[in-house]
Amino acid sequence: MSELLNKMQWRYACKKMDPSKVVPQDKVDRIVEAARLAPTSSGLQPFEVIVVSNPAVRAQLQPKAYNQAQVTEGSHLLVFAAWDNYTAERINTYFDFTNAERGGTNEGWENYRKMLLANYPGRDPKVNFEHAARQAYIGLGAALISAAFEEVDATPMEGFEPAAVDEILGLAARNLRSVVIVPLGYRAEGDWLVGLKKVRRPVEQFVTEVK
Amino acid sequence: MSELLNKMQWRYACKKMDPSKVVPQDKVDRIVEAARLAPTSSGLQPFEVIVVSNPAVRAQLQPKAYNQAQVTEGSHLLVFAAWDNYTAERINTYFDFTNAERGGTNEGWENYRKMLLANYPGRDPKVNFEHAARQAYIGLGAALISAAFEEVDATPMEGFEPAAVDEILGLAARNLRSVVIVPLGYRAEGDWLVGLKKVRRPVEQFVTEVK
Repeated sequence: MSELLNKMQWRYACKKMDPSKVVPQDKVDRIVEAARLAPTSSGLQPFEVIVVSNPAVRAQLQPKAYNQAQVTEGSHLLVFAAWDNYTAERINTYFDFTNAERGGTNEGWENYRKMLLANYPGRDPKVNFEHAARQAYIGLGAALISAAFEEVDATPMEGFEPAAVDEILGLAARNLRSVVIVPLGYRAEGDWLVGLKKVRRPVEQFVTEVK
Repeated sequence: MSELLNKMQWRYACKKMDPSKVVPQDKVDRIVEAARLAPTSSGLQPFEVIVVSNPAVRAQLQPKAYNQAQVTEGSHLLVFAAWDNYTAERINTYFDFTNAERGGTNEGWENYRKMLLANYPGRDPKVNFEHAARQAYIGLGAALISAAFEEVDATPMEGFEPAAVDEILGLAARNLRSVVIVPLGYRAEGDWLVGLKKVRRPVEQFVTEVK
């Protein structure tokens, strides 16, 4: 088994975190860095990560997340927020930045920009948001794996009120919408889930080979 | 930098694969295993992975993927296919299997089953499919990272005709819908992208800290 698969076996959705333990900043940084490095469609990275360490803000968020304990038992809360839409400005900012980073451009790349500009901004914003949300989930996967490499517990949660979270964090004004939140912390004694077997569908029911 | 971040820096969306090289089966298995171990909402794993090594089938799929070369230059094509809907049967199968694996159940868990049964099957199938697709993207992220650990190139592609791919692979009949495809292979000499700088938005434009 690879080191990666070992780490993935180690992780689980921690249900009870030890409120006395704080995740060191360098670990938080490497967890978020994995999300930043994650690949996304056309490289647009149509999401951001809000890192909430402030205890008062997490206490304010908690009732909007069905009072799940880890929101305040952990030391940090990651909020993955997807772009609410693809706009020409966002697309151009990305292509211009890429050209600046790479010190030039070429016809194929500029044609690709034009293709995206011709297609994305005119689509139904709901379609664009769903597309952006999927990309955020690639980043989520990367961050959860990175947390495992840091031996930090991370519990992805979809059970929260996105509009309320967006309001508290001022995300709507930035044209962002929260899609998933992830408390970071350390497992506490007595978590009911930690001792239970990790269950996944058997390979035969998950993989189809076409040889 | 962690080993994980090193691997993520190494990977890129390979544009030209060497058709003479074949990814060994044990590597393919560990790449798909990462998708299988990936966390998903409620643990439902609402997606499957089709592993197409058959060259004739990949040649048939290629024109449905805008003739992207890697579909046939690589040795394997992963097709991530999300559940088209959440049904009571799918939910019950998961809970029953989990109970069998863990050798029992409890009231909280059975209440959770009831809550999902009361909510998911009655929702708009489009909402359920989008939810399932997001989970598939967590698995996608895990598989891409696993490929990097195996030093295998992997190029995620959304540019394909899902209905045509579903037809060729018989997915609709299994209530699955393809959401992303990933050729696996090895980078060839002369890939225009390999030498270009990996571009990601700066941390300051990706992360917001609420301290």
